[in-house]
Amino acid sequence: MRLAIDAMGGDEGPRCIVEGSARAVVERPELELVLFGPAQRLATELKRLPRPLAAAASRLVVRDTPDYVRPDATAAWALRYGHATSMAAMLSMVKSGEASAGVSAGNTAALVALARRDVGLCGGLSRPAISTSIPSGQNGRCYLLDLGANVDSPPERLVDFALMGAAMAQCLDGIEKPSVALLNVGVEAVKGSASVRKADACLRERAESLGLDYRGYAEGGDIYQGEFDVVVCDGFIGNVTLKASEGLTRMLVKRLQTALGSRPSGRLASWLARPLLRQLQHELSPVRYNGATLLGLKASVVKSHGSADAEGFYYAIERALHQVAHSLPARVERLLLERGPRGASNKTTH
Amino acid sequence: MRLAIDAMGGDEGPRCIVEGSARAVVERPELELVLFGPAQRLATELKRLPRPLAAAASRLVVRDTPDYVRPDATAAWALRYGHATSMAAMLSMVKSGEASAGVSAGNTAALVALARRDVGLCGGLSRPAISTSIPSGQNGRCYLLDLGANVDSPPERLVDFALMGAAMAQCLDGIEKPSVALLNVGVEAVKGSASVRKADACLRERAESLGLDYRGYAEGGDIYQGEFDVVVCDGFIGNVTLKASEGLTRMLVKRLQTALGSRPSGRLASWLARPLLRQLQHELSPVRYNGATLLGLKASVVKSHGSADAEGFYYAIERALHQVAHSLPARVERLLLERGPRGASNKTTH
Repeated sequence: MRLAIDAMGGDEGPRCIVEGSARAVVERPELELVLFGPAQRLATELKRLPRPLAAAASRLVVRDTPDYVRPDATAAWALRYGHATSMAAMLSMVKSGEASAGVSAGNTAALVALARRDVGLCGGLSRPAISTSIPSGQNGRCYLLDLGANVDSPPERLVDFALMGAAMAQCLDGIEKPSVALLNVGVEAVKGSASVRKADACLRERAESLGLDYRGYAEGGDIYQGEFDVVVCDGFIGNVTLKASEGLTRMLVKRLQTALGSRPSGRLASWLARPLLRQLQHELSPVRYNGATLLGLKASVVKSHGSADAEGFYYAIERALHQVAHSLPARVERLLLERGPRGASNKTTH
Repeated sequence: MRLAIDAMGGDEGPRCIVEGSARAVVERPELELVLFGPAQRLATELKRLPRPLAAAASRLVVRDTPDYVRPDATAAWALRYGHATSMAAMLSMVKSGEASAGVSAGNTAALVALARRDVGLCGGLSRPAISTSIPSGQNGRCYLLDLGANVDSPPERLVDFALMGAAMAQCLDGIEKPSVALLNVGVEAVKGSASVRKADACLRERAESLGLDYRGYAEGGDIYQGEFDVVVCDGFIGNVTLKASEGLTRMLVKRLQTALGSRPSGRLASWLARPLLRQLQHELSPVRYNGATLLGLKASVVKSHGSADAEGFYYAIERALHQVAHSLPARVERLLLERGPRGASNKTTH
């Protein structure tokens, strides 16, 4: 098993990426990781690895790629000038099939644009979607998409998000007929934008034949109630909702700690609750800690957060391996084939 | 001082509304509240008031209005058939100037539609906006709008939201030059929808002359970091974001309590933290607990949450009184006049 790694996307250079990669190969003796980045810098980081990890360095193969995509680069720049970057080189290894999947912590807009062009899209999609699983209900979780690859999504794209989210729940969690809801400002039929209402009509008509348990509209608060396996929305809304949730969790934890710390009895509570608060903060910043998945591509590409530490990058690699093991891209492709060409699903949406 | 109250909007009938109203008149000897609803039902509730509140019942004036807007009514229904409802009667008292402001816990879509037609809009607006203040940063708060009255907002409407939010911060919090940000999927200039980018260009050009401290784009997480007095977005996004935040808070508090309760040491922490958790839950469901403001009308109209208890309805009345005392509608109107007719602000956005 071989994965391709863009070693240059992290906010603080390749250190955490190299360390997370080393940890992954130590844990999986059958795994080889190909790291793309400037050979010298990667060699330095490899030498710095602590002893237990250094042993596995032989299964971290460096491919010298001096150029890389800057954090502030646009998708247009990446498409025009990014051919020789570590990100593009990583993706072309995925495209060729030499690697089963790819991971990058780099610029999201560039990764979406390059992956779309270089890895290729399934079944009539025009762009990949981005998804992650968020905690929901008492113990559950929920796939939320799109998280920002598509702003202003027309109805047929929302329908595709529903299918791709369902493929994730089927493949990765073994849920045969995932429950899917469409995010809206209310649950009544008259609510929301024209685009959402058209997507709802289309999903009502076709869900059964596509193997979805379509539940209609969900409101913002329902995302966290544990009732749905998949919640679908336009990328602008998903992006804002996820980031607002992360920001709110940070604020809540800080306010709780401050308020508890201001009273003697509270200081005890604060100390007792600390590990739990840290865990909640991790769970509720899923992209920051575990990465996100680009969906609808011919192969698995996982986006790790730019600020992820070695552990976060390790989880992003694990996520990619999990998707390869469960053939997620093939499942997505099959569901998109079953929904037929775009024209067919459009018929009912005009 | 006289306010008009739609007594029939609450999820459980008029009881909480009558009790919250009674509390308000007890606290303010100069206040008179006119309650619109079926006389018999309101008389029953007035008789049920506990003794300390019953004393003030003479300043709760009942106007018999047998009809009311159902929770599932559409805006179109309210406009066509709603003339004789308690909501419409309340609004026409506000319109006539007999009452300084109005409060309803009823159907939001109907309230927005009827208020727009019957109370009237300022300065070239096509619809009112809905706003509430959410907790932000360590001790601060932030006005978020729109919360759902407008879905698919064109750029000029986003600019109007910025002005109306600024008027709230100026008027109610005494902030001379409020900091305003526009919600987007990233802070770089190329990010986001065409509508948001056009609104950004217009705000950059005109903020100084309109007395705003315009800070450009904010991401979802920034809402809660305490950096901005006002955050502006399309109503679909604001609605989903606020409801997701409320749902997340409920989930977090429940998970915290369960996790803490499962260990003896945690049970102590849980007990110690309980009042604090309850307070956070209140603060983070601002609409549920304190109501929201309809902005851009010729007079103050406050929307209380349908599920608000007597205390929640009391706060909604307080909110309306606060707005009257600070002449919020006049301030909003002045800012909208200063921005000039829509044509002028459109010039730079095409």
